[in-house]
Amino acid sequence: MIIKYISTFSAVIYLLNCLTPEENTGCQHGLYFQDGERRVDYILTYHIKKPSSSRSNRQSSRFTDNAFTRSLRRGTARLGRAPPPQPRGDPEVASQDHSMDYHVDDKRLHREEFEGNLRDMGIELEKDEDTKTPGVGFVKIHAPWHVLCREAEFMKLKMPTKKVYEMKQSTGVGAKINTLVNKVTEPLYPNVEDNRTHNVKHLSYMFSREKQHLFDLSDRDSFFDSKTRASIVSVIVSSRSSRTVDWSLRPLRPLITVDHLSLFMRTISGMCLLLLYRFLCRKYFGEKIGLYFAWLGLYTQMLIPASLVGVIVFLYGCATVDDNIPSMEICHPKNNITMCPLCDRACSYWKLKEACGTARASHLFDNPATVFFSIFMALWAAMFMEHWKRRQMRLNYEWDLTGFEEEEVSDHPRAEYELRVMQKSLKKEHKTQKVLIEKEKLTCRDRLPAYMTNVVMMLLMIGVTFAIVFGVILYRISTKTALHMSNNPTTRSNVRLTVKTTAAIINLVVILILDEVYGAVARWLTVLEVPKTDKSFEERLIFKTFILKFVNAFTPIIYIAFFRGRLVGRPGSYLYVFESYRMEECAHGGCLMELCIQLSITMLGKQLIQNNLFEIGIPKLKKLIRYIKSKRRSFQEEEREKKLQRYETDHFLEPFAGLTPEYMEMIIQFGFVTLFVASFPLAPLFALLNNIIEIRLDAKKFVAELRRPVAARAKDIGIWYNLLRAVAKVAVIINAFVISFTSDFIPRLVYQYMYSPDGSMHGFVNHTLSYFNVSNFQDGKEPMDPQHQVEMCRYKDYREPPWSNTPYVISKEFWAVLAARLAFVIVFQNVVMLMSDIVDWLIPDIPKDISLQIHKEKILMVELFMKEEQGKIQFIDSMMPCGGKEKRNNHAPIARSRSIPHTHSHTHANNF
Amino acid sequence: MIIKYISTFSAVIYLLNCLTPEENTGCQHGLYFQDGERRVDYILTYHIKKPSSSRSNRQSSRFTDNAFTRSLRRGTARLGRAPPPQPRGDPEVASQDHSMDYHVDDKRLHREEFEGNLRDMGIELEKDEDTKTPGVGFVKIHAPWHVLCREAEFMKLKMPTKKVYEMKQSTGVGAKINTLVNKVTEPLYPNVEDNRTHNVKHLSYMFSREKQHLFDLSDRDSFFDSKTRASIVSVIVSSRSSRTVDWSLRPLRPLITVDHLSLFMRTISGMCLLLLYRFLCRKYFGEKIGLYFAWLGLYTQMLIPASLVGVIVFLYGCATVDDNIPSMEICHPKNNITMCPLCDRACSYWKLKEACGTARASHLFDNPATVFFSIFMALWAAMFMEHWKRRQMRLNYEWDLTGFEEEEVSDHPRAEYELRVMQKSLKKEHKTQKVLIEKEKLTCRDRLPAYMTNVVMMLLMIGVTFAIVFGVILYRISTKTALHMSNNPTTRSNVRLTVKTTAAIINLVVILILDEVYGAVARWLTVLEVPKTDKSFEERLIFKTFILKFVNAFTPIIYIAFFRGRLVGRPGSYLYVFESYRMEECAHGGCLMELCIQLSITMLGKQLIQNNLFEIGIPKLKKLIRYIKSKRRSFQEEEREKKLQRYETDHFLEPFAGLTPEYMEMIIQFGFVTLFVASFPLAPLFALLNNIIEIRLDAKKFVAELRRPVAARAKDIGIWYNLLRAVAKVAVIINAFVISFTSDFIPRLVYQYMYSPDGSMHGFVNHTLSYFNVSNFQDGKEPMDPQHQVEMCRYKDYREPPWSNTPYVISKEFWAVLAARLAFVIVFQNVVMLMSDIVDWLIPDIPKDISLQIHKEKILMVELFMKEEQGKIQFIDSMMPCGGKEKRNNHAPIARSRSIPHTHSHTHANNF
Repeated sequence: MIIKYISTFSAVIYLLNCLTPEENTGCQHGLYFQDGERRVDYILTYHIKKPSSSRSNRQSSRFTDNAFTRSLRRGTARLGRAPPPQPRGDPEVASQDHSMDYHVDDKRLHREEFEGNLRDMGIELEKDEDTKTPGVGFVKIHAPWHVLCREAEFMKLKMPTKKVYEMKQSTGVGAKINTLVNKVTEPLYPNVEDNRTHNVKHLSYMFSREKQHLFDLSDRDSFFDSKTRASIVSVIVSSRSSRTVDWSLRPLRPLITVDHLSLFMRTISGMCLLLLYRFLCRKYFGEKIGLYFAWLGLYTQMLIPASLVGVIVFLYGCATVDDNIPSMEICHPKNNITMCPLCDRACSYWKLKEACGTARASHLFDNPATVFFSIFMALWAAMFMEHWKRRQMRLNYEWDLTGFEEEEVSDHPRAEYELRVMQKSLKKEHKTQKVLIEKEKLTCRDRLPAYMTNVVMMLLMIGVTFAIVFGVILYRISTKTALHMSNNPTTRSNVRLTVKTTAAIINLVVILILDEVYGAVARWLTVLEVPKTDKSFEERLIFKTFILKFVNAFTPIIYIAFFRGRLVGRPGSYLYVFESYRMEECAHGGCLMELCIQLSITMLGKQLIQNNLFEIGIPKLKKLIRYIKSKRRSFQEEEREKKLQRYETDHFLEPFAGLTPEYMEMIIQFGFVTLFVASFPLAPLFALLNNIIEIRLDAKKFVAELRRPVAARAKDIGIWYNLLRAVAKVAVIINAFVISFTSDFIPRLVYQYMYSPDGSMHGFVNHTLSYFNVSNFQDGKEPMDPQHQVEMCRYKDYREPPWSNTPYVISKEFWAVLAARLAFVIVFQNVVMLMSDIVDWLIPDIPKDISLQIHKEKILMVELFMKEEQGKIQFIDSMMPCGGKEKRNNHAPIARSRSIPHTHSHTHANNF
Repeated sequence: MIIKYISTFSAVIYLLNCLTPEENTGCQHGLYFQDGERRVDYILTYHIKKPSSSRSNRQSSRFTDNAFTRSLRRGTARLGRAPPPQPRGDPEVASQDHSMDYHVDDKRLHREEFEGNLRDMGIELEKDEDTKTPGVGFVKIHAPWHVLCREAEFMKLKMPTKKVYEMKQSTGVGAKINTLVNKVTEPLYPNVEDNRTHNVKHLSYMFSREKQHLFDLSDRDSFFDSKTRASIVSVIVSSRSSRTVDWSLRPLRPLITVDHLSLFMRTISGMCLLLLYRFLCRKYFGEKIGLYFAWLGLYTQMLIPASLVGVIVFLYGCATVDDNIPSMEICHPKNNITMCPLCDRACSYWKLKEACGTARASHLFDNPATVFFSIFMALWAAMFMEHWKRRQMRLNYEWDLTGFEEEEVSDHPRAEYELRVMQKSLKKEHKTQKVLIEKEKLTCRDRLPAYMTNVVMMLLMIGVTFAIVFGVILYRISTKTALHMSNNPTTRSNVRLTVKTTAAIINLVVILILDEVYGAVARWLTVLEVPKTDKSFEERLIFKTFILKFVNAFTPIIYIAFFRGRLVGRPGSYLYVFESYRMEECAHGGCLMELCIQLSITMLGKQLIQNNLFEIGIPKLKKLIRYIKSKRRSFQEEEREKKLQRYETDHFLEPFAGLTPEYMEMIIQFGFVTLFVASFPLAPLFALLNNIIEIRLDAKKFVAELRRPVAARAKDIGIWYNLLRAVAKVAVIINAFVISFTSDFIPRLVYQYMYSPDGSMHGFVNHTLSYFNVSNFQDGKEPMDPQHQVEMCRYKDYREPPWSNTPYVISKEFWAVLAARLAFVIVFQNVVMLMSDIVDWLIPDIPKDISLQIHKEKILMVELFMKEEQGKIQFIDSMMPCGGKEKRNNHAPIARSRSIPHTHSHTHANNF
């Protein structure tokens, strides 16, 4: 329990240090090469098909393989075009009937060529095929110092220099509030930033071998940390493989990167993980995953005020329910309004009094405070976006990413793309009998079938969603009619509740199942498209998944919000589906209540079942299966199980599948929080509760259940930001429509200011109800109940009464209310958009202190260089006491010289 | 005339070369120091108050001034705080009664300190006080090679390396269209890009002294071109002055930068200027002004399709005017509808037939094609934004700005700000009798009075605009009434035309005058605010100017579009201003016609008078005045006039005042083109015609009338882009309202689909007119004309007829039409916004070929470095035949070495 209170970085380092030596005895051979000195930075795996006897002389023979062939191949590879296809392209594509042996040999050849390429880059390899995991070979990779330096320079990595400076603590009011907020919310989410060690910072500068003296290289082993080393190797591996011809046959798969940190992270878990997260998240996982957690943290943090206000709004609704005149009028004992029956024949007339409960309940969600709340939430979303931009900027600064430009690695074509291109050019060559010099591309025409499939499948999937929603509607209508006809009085009284609940649960189950199906379909469709780069693949996949999952999650809700109860018709001329089922109406309080129920069930169910159960359960299950499979294959090794190499145990873990599912889950939740927030002010609270668990489960999953991903640098969260913006934009218009069309807010206002005789809400209920003469019922549709004999019944609509010149025609009030509703939409949308833009404009994208800090760093850097040069001038002056080879005036031109300390400088003044 | 056809770069260079030697004889001493070798890169000027005798021994004494004091001052300056205020702060602030001499001496001292600082930075100075321009001293500045190199490294300038590579010509369909478009539009605007020399490009790399061997330094004089040299010196000058304490007393003002190019540019002008512009704009003015011309070019280019479509829409209106049923009905000879009088007493009843002309004319602008056109223009604006982003990206790439980050120079506090801060801290010190260590800042409280003034003045100015618009309305109403009462029948028949035209002209004149006033007010208000940096000053100024000028230009138009004719009341209960003037109505065809007239007069007048007359006339006038002034002061020098130094003639030119006025003018034009385009489809055409002239006048002005500005680097057009976006956004909603409320588009649709008996437009006119029983006129308001005796008259409104239960109450049709209008606004706004977003999303921000090129450059750069290293390894291998100090395995670690050609390499292998 002591660990819970240890929160400074030094303590964590201490823990690391005191843990690893102990582990070293058991695992060191997993972290180092056989010589025990060179660290393993990266591991590649490959499949071994036949564990034949020829494998035993591996290590020695492999490392001295014929360098001549290799360099020859490399030569052609460097030329940037495919070698003539006859010798080696054929076995793969043109003819499939070669022997398996040849195939395996071919793969081995390619692998060796690839390894040779890596070695040419200065990388050191060590093979380990003699593992306890049969069928898998491991290649351990070590990048020596000079390779790390070179690649760091090419990648323009910013590294900390020796120069330390003090960071100014921001002192504004905003900063104080921020600190307070951070303190209050600290226990709730794992912050990726480390607020405590902020006071001093190493000045960072783009690493360059010529400026090595700037950096503190006293401990070369730790200058580049393990995640940097791994990503450097990863860049080399992927760039090499893309430049070799046989990318598509790449025989090696990256597995994991192991080091002390990963050992440590795996051994601990649970509560103390949270504390570690503050310090290790970025260091262990790299910036991309660091950004995800930072984003999730900020989102969760921002949910706190939203849920607070939401709860207050809800409580306001609860508190004012007894002062609400319309529901008072409905519940009033003297109220004797007879309503028209809710279904044909089976249902009877009913008294408006009976709807008293619903009317009171719907006031909870349909009151002026919800209008305020949806404006608040729109601004909240804008604020969240702005804050995220700022947070991102701050993290970029703190993580030394300010100068970094993206799209480095991701521009390499994907293996599948290259394969398709190769197939295409082979086909063409086969046809024209000529060797093509130009590199082929996949044109639109090549992709046309895939695009067509995409469009058709997407439409089909959306159609399926609609069909299911329609099916649930039919279920509701038919069940309701059936239950109404039942003779059991308790069944009949529980009709609404039973139908609503079962329908919502059916909806939920369908959504959950379809979500999984749609995820698979989207991936399949994207694979069909053969996008060129990984980035493009990811974006297309995300786009498709996003559309399908959004449609899936929100179609039933949109139906309830905007269509239900609007296509009913009127007594005497109802609308029928399949000629016998009347379209469903909403309860008297409007559809807002039903929308709210549907929303809460979908949101809660989805979060509880999908996010938390699936996300943790499935990886565990997969790991178990994987483990059992391999165990069954070689059960004789049971006793050696405990002594597995580090990377072997990691091999059993699920590989890291990218952040897409995590972000997707959150963005759909963001949709629930913003899109229909006017009808469900408690949504932010539910989201908050979910996220507090989610963030912990995610952390645990990433550390303990998944292989360590290769650290990727990223400045921003990419396409997700745009999707969030899009959701926030759509939310404004949807909320405008929910308030004006789904709720009774506008009719109430119109009544109060246009029709009310005394300016109060008295008489509103009566005003919204039209008259119907029961003699106008169609034959066979009138209620069978003999008890009630009435002349007029009432229904909720604005229509002319039976005694007017144009009975049952839409009345002037209807048009006035409609105009008011539409005007409200316009005003709401534009005011909220304007306010969002103002928020956007008022909050600067770059925090003041960060921009000051960046500026200060620049000045410090210039000063550092200037000082260095001054030192050099003095050195030259002392070397040449009076006038050297050149005329020197009062202020000497500053000599360039090798600027490495501890070696003698050597100036060439004549070089100017 | 030959020059007109010379368009390759080499020809221009040739011109430059053959021109300058000739000029050299006359002007060389203006371009070089006295020694005739060192080039003048920058010139500072200062005022000489008293040309006393002590000035004659200047050059020698100045250059050897007491170094001790200087270094002492510098020492305190470096500490970053003000020296004790007694010795030198007092004369400025605390006491104003010191002698002038002291003051002048003090200024001289500061100047010398400043010059000393510059010399410490390695910069070489030469003074010239013995000019023919009395009262002005010139300091010529030369930056030697090592200073240029050092600063170029600090500024991270990208310079061309020796490595040349071929640029791939884009081959897609888009590229072909682009080329075609460029060819067609070539003569219209001066393109900043040079399309001809695109095939090869020098690989650019951030200049670094350690990597000098990469760059082609064979000709050091031309490696950094004159604009780069000038901007380097400018950076040094401004950074030095900001670091010295006495910034606020900076005694030197930057004047101009001169070189052969500028000489050449000045000597030629007119037609051939355009050709030169293609090549020289960026080279001569720098990237910031280059971007302006590129933006203006793209805007003009984009106006071509817009004006084409606009003309087509207008022609469609002309062609269909005879098929338009409503105007046919109005003009029909059998039409016998009597309308209610247009003014009280003086006016009589009139026949609807009389409005035939207006009805036909308003069809020109009020037809379904205008709806299409305003959607088109909204998408056009989105497209323009996207294209500009792409163009900007392309220019960034071509101008080697891809890695460059802004906010370098602009972060220095302004002199005025520093002065205010100094005053504040002096006051505080005076109070507390303590020397303050902390640097003071201007807090919100210090600025509160200025902010208050700002708000009040802004509101006042906007109020003035409103008042003037209201005044013009009153003028119109009263004149109309007066003219109606006149007995002259020709006057009466011309009433409408006379009133409209004079009112529009008054409006125009007021707009023109207020525009100048508002420009001055905005500047004054911004100066009051004392913004900290130049950037902030500019942004605040732009923001204020933008608001004031926009309000000024668009208030009368918005009044006509949305308020005129809506606050009229109805016959029998009209609305009166000042109890006697009835509010004005629109002509029968709706206000669209009047809006169109107002728009065209404002736009054309503003452009013709303001942009072209003022812009060229005023600088010329100022130059003349300045010249005459200085001539009067020293008329004895008349004969030497011709032999003025280059920088002296330039001194008489107007200084460059920034691009704000140019952009502002264009953005207001953009407002005219987009905001009310639904009512005036010819706006883009007028804008196009204006811009074709404008671009030429601007070019001439910048070259011939203004001092050469210091070249500033810029990646984008900054705040202007945001303003353009804002205008484009507002345009969508304004057009939606113009179509639905100002035009009769929606009432026609509603009539056709809801009320028309046969689905045609027949009967529409009758439907829009309500009945009025003349017996219901208020006493004294009925027309005096005795000829007409009618019982009912008609007026344009949707109200119940006199014979209904609720006479003259707004009718159901009104509400239905209103709902339709509002629904149209919602649909239009959201559809157009969605389409704009889709355009935004479909067009990638970075052109495909540019992103490929950038990627290729990166790979080439890495390859270059790798090759270099391979060379070094071989060199080492040849130096150490077998095994040196260190163990070397198969692939040696790559040795770092000094990489300067022509000097012997010196390796330190033990350095790894």
